[in-house]
Amino acid sequence: MENFEKRLEDYAKLIVEVGVNVQKGQPVEIRIAADQYVFAEKLTKAAYEAGASSVRVDFNHQPLSLLHNQYKTVEKLAEVSAEDKARLEYSVENLPAMIAITSADPDGLKGMDMAKQQKASAIRYPIIKPYIDKMESKYQWVIAGAASPAWAQKVFPDLPAEEALAALWDAIFKTSRMEAGTDPVKNWDKHNASFKAHMDWLNEQHFDYLHYKSPKGTDFKAWLHPKVKWLGGGEKLHGGPERLGHEVFYNPNMPTEEIFTTPMKGKAEGTVYSTKPLSYMGQLIENFSITFKDGKAVEWQAESGSEVLDKMITMDENAAYIGELALVPDSSPISQSGILFYNTLYDENASCHIALGAGFPDLYEDYDKYSREELEKLGINDSMIHVDFMIGSNELDIDGYTKDGKCVPIFRKGEWAFEV
Amino acid sequence: MENFEKRLEDYAKLIVEVGVNVQKGQPVEIRIAADQYVFAEKLTKAAYEAGASSVRVDFNHQPLSLLHNQYKTVEKLAEVSAEDKARLEYSVENLPAMIAITSADPDGLKGMDMAKQQKASAIRYPIIKPYIDKMESKYQWVIAGAASPAWAQKVFPDLPAEEALAALWDAIFKTSRMEAGTDPVKNWDKHNASFKAHMDWLNEQHFDYLHYKSPKGTDFKAWLHPKVKWLGGGEKLHGGPERLGHEVFYNPNMPTEEIFTTPMKGKAEGTVYSTKPLSYMGQLIENFSITFKDGKAVEWQAESGSEVLDKMITMDENAAYIGELALVPDSSPISQSGILFYNTLYDENASCHIALGAGFPDLYEDYDKYSREELEKLGINDSMIHVDFMIGSNELDIDGYTKDGKCVPIFRKGEWAFEV
Repeated sequence: MENFEKRLEDYAKLIVEVGVNVQKGQPVEIRIAADQYVFAEKLTKAAYEAGASSVRVDFNHQPLSLLHNQYKTVEKLAEVSAEDKARLEYSVENLPAMIAITSADPDGLKGMDMAKQQKASAIRYPIIKPYIDKMESKYQWVIAGAASPAWAQKVFPDLPAEEALAALWDAIFKTSRMEAGTDPVKNWDKHNASFKAHMDWLNEQHFDYLHYKSPKGTDFKAWLHPKVKWLGGGEKLHGGPERLGHEVFYNPNMPTEEIFTTPMKGKAEGTVYSTKPLSYMGQLIENFSITFKDGKAVEWQAESGSEVLDKMITMDENAAYIGELALVPDSSPISQSGILFYNTLYDENASCHIALGAGFPDLYEDYDKYSREELEKLGINDSMIHVDFMIGSNELDIDGYTKDGKCVPIFRKGEWAFEV
Repeated sequence: MENFEKRLEDYAKLIVEVGVNVQKGQPVEIRIAADQYVFAEKLTKAAYEAGASSVRVDFNHQPLSLLHNQYKTVEKLAEVSAEDKARLEYSVENLPAMIAITSADPDGLKGMDMAKQQKASAIRYPIIKPYIDKMESKYQWVIAGAASPAWAQKVFPDLPAEEALAALWDAIFKTSRMEAGTDPVKNWDKHNASFKAHMDWLNEQHFDYLHYKSPKGTDFKAWLHPKVKWLGGGEKLHGGPERLGHEVFYNPNMPTEEIFTTPMKGKAEGTVYSTKPLSYMGQLIENFSITFKDGKAVEWQAESGSEVLDKMITMDENAAYIGELALVPDSSPISQSGILFYNTLYDENASCHIALGAGFPDLYEDYDKYSREELEKLGINDSMIHVDFMIGSNELDIDGYTKDGKCVPIFRKGEWAFEV
C-alpha cells in the first residue's frame, strides 16, 4: 500500500513535470472524476510544488452526465452561460496548463440519448469554438489515465475487484514508462529521442501518398499534404517564447507511441478495417469498416454499435473526413502488454490508426499566419469531432510513394521498415 | 447493502422534497464532497424527479483546501473572478435551491494558516456581500449530513472503520427522523407542528430579556428585540409568492430542533460556559467561556483551541456581538443519542446555544423595507461570521422577564417549563 502510494505520487509528478510541464506562476486546471479524489490531491500537490500560482480541480462523475442527458432539455444541455463564457475568457487570457485524467467506465454512458446530446453539442459548439481557436497550441495540456473499479473490471473481467484495480494501475504505470527500478524522466527523454529520429526521416521523404494493405481487407490510400509535417512524442509550446520567455517542451499524451500527421482533405480512397473496438461516448463500436471516396467516408458498417458509428460520422459536415493518420509499431509496450484497455488513449498506441474529424492546424507550415477557416480551405479538415480508430496489426504493410513514383516501405508486418 | 441503498435514496428524497422543497422548473445546486459521489447521484436524481430544470453538483475535497491555503498567495485566495461574479449574478437572478452536504473530517483542516485565510476572507467578503444580500431569504436552502470514513472514525473512535461508518449513517438517518417503519414526511409534519406551538407561545410573551443560569457557572442575560420574532423548524419562503406564484415551505436544517431569535445588538451581560466542543474551520475549541458587556464579548478563555477562538471572535468588528439565541430541549433525539457528532449541524440541536456574528435580518418585522445597513443600526448584528456554540445541558434554567418585571420559567433542567 505504501509502495502504491509512492508510485501514485511519482506518477502525479511525471504528469505535472514531464506531461504538462507546469511553469512557475502558471495556473493549472485538473479535470478528474470525483472518485479519483486521492489522485486529485497528489496531482494538486505536485502542481503547486512545480510552482503553479493556482490549481483548480474540476471533479466530474459519469452517472451525473447520464442524468443530465435524461432530464435536461436540449436548450439547458446546450446552454453556454455568462459564467462559462467568463471562464473561457479567463483561459484565453491566462492559458492555464490543463491536466485531464481519464478513468471512466467504458460502458458507463450506455443508454444515453445520443441524438439529444448531439443536438446540444451542435448548438454549444459554435459558441465555444472562437475561444478554443484563440487558445489553440498556446497552452500545455496532457491526457493521462487513472484506474477506476468499473474500468478495471471491464479490462480484467476474470479478476476479483481489488486485483483488477491493482492490475490496471500497474498497466497504467508500466505503459507510462514507469517500470520499477528505472528513472521515468530519463525513459521519457530516450523515448522522445526515438520519436524525433523516425519523425525526421518521415518528414525528409516528402511522400505524396501512403498505401495501407493488410490480409484482413484493408486497401487504402491517403494523400499527404506537402505543407503538413509529421509529429510525435512531446511538443514545443508554439506560443511559448512570447508568453513565458522560453520554450516549453510538454507531452500531451501519456502514454504516447504514435507519429502522426493530418492528410490532405478530400484525397483518400479505399477501405479500412478496424482492428480493435472503439469506445465512443461511452459506447463500444466493434469490427467495423469504412470506405472512403474523394477523402470522405461514403460507406460504413459495424458488427455492433453501428448506430453510434452513424452518429459519429454524421456529427457534422466534416466528421466524415480524415483529420489524422498515425503510425505506431506493433511492438509498442501497449501492444506487447496484450491488454485491451477499452480506452482510446491507450489502445490507439497499440496500433496504427486514423481519426475522423478535425485535423491539427499547427502541423501546417506557418499555421499562425492563417485563420482556422483559411486552413480548412487549404486542406486541414475542421469538425467538432476528432475520433481515433485502430487499423494496425502485425499484418499491416504501409508503403510511401513519392511524387516521382518511387515506392519506399514504411511498415512491414506492423513494424518500422527503415533504419534511423 | 441493498437496505442501505434504499435508505440513502429515501434520505436524498427527504432532503430534496422536505428539506429544500425543489419546485418544478427550478435550478438546483448541490455542494458535496468528492468522496460522496454515490450520494451526489441519489440527490441529483431526486432533484430531477422533483422537477428541477438543471442540477449542478459542485464537488469539493477538504485536503485541497489545505493545499490552496498553503500554496496560494492571499491575493489568489481572495480573488473573486469574473467567472465567480457571473455565477453570483446568475444566482441572484435565478435563485437556485441550494443543497449543502456536510461530511468533512472535523479535524481535517488542522495545520491551516488561519491568519492567511482570514485576510483572504476579509478581501473577498465585501465583494461578495452585495450578491448575498440580494438573495437573502429569497431561495430555499438546506444543510444536511453524510457520513464519511474520517468523520465516522472521529465520532466512533473505538469501532472498526466499516462499523463506524455504518453507525454514523444510522445516527444521521435517525436524527433526521427516518426511524425504520415510520413515514419520514409525516414525522417532519408532526415535528413542525410542535415547533409552531412553542414558537407561537414564545412570540406571545413579548419577553424583554432572558436570564440563563446553570451550576457550571453560566449567568447571563440577553435582551430581546421587540420587533424580532422567534422562529423554528421549517420556513415559508418570503420571496416565494412573487417568484413562484405560491408559498414554499422548506426546512433549512436537517435535523433541526431549535427555536431561535436574533437578540438586540449591544444588550447582553454576563458569562456563558460552553457545554460541548466547537468545531470551527476544522479545528476544535473545547471548554471555553465568554463574558459579555454591553452585548460584546470582552473576555474569553478556552482549555484548548484558544487561538482559533481568538481568530473567530476578532474576525471582524461585529464578530464579538451576538447574532442568535436558540432554545433546544435536552430531550431532543440528538441529545438522547448520546453521540457527540463534532459537527455543529447536529451538536447544536442537542443543546441551547448562542451564535456570535451575523443575526437573521428576516426575523425582523417588515425586514424587506430596510437595507441591511439600516437593519444593523436597528439592532440586527451583521458580520462575516455566524458561529453557534452550545451552552445547554440538563442543568440549564432559563427565565423570561417581561417589561413589567414578571418572571416566567422557559426552561427547567434543560426542558421546556411551559405547556402548549
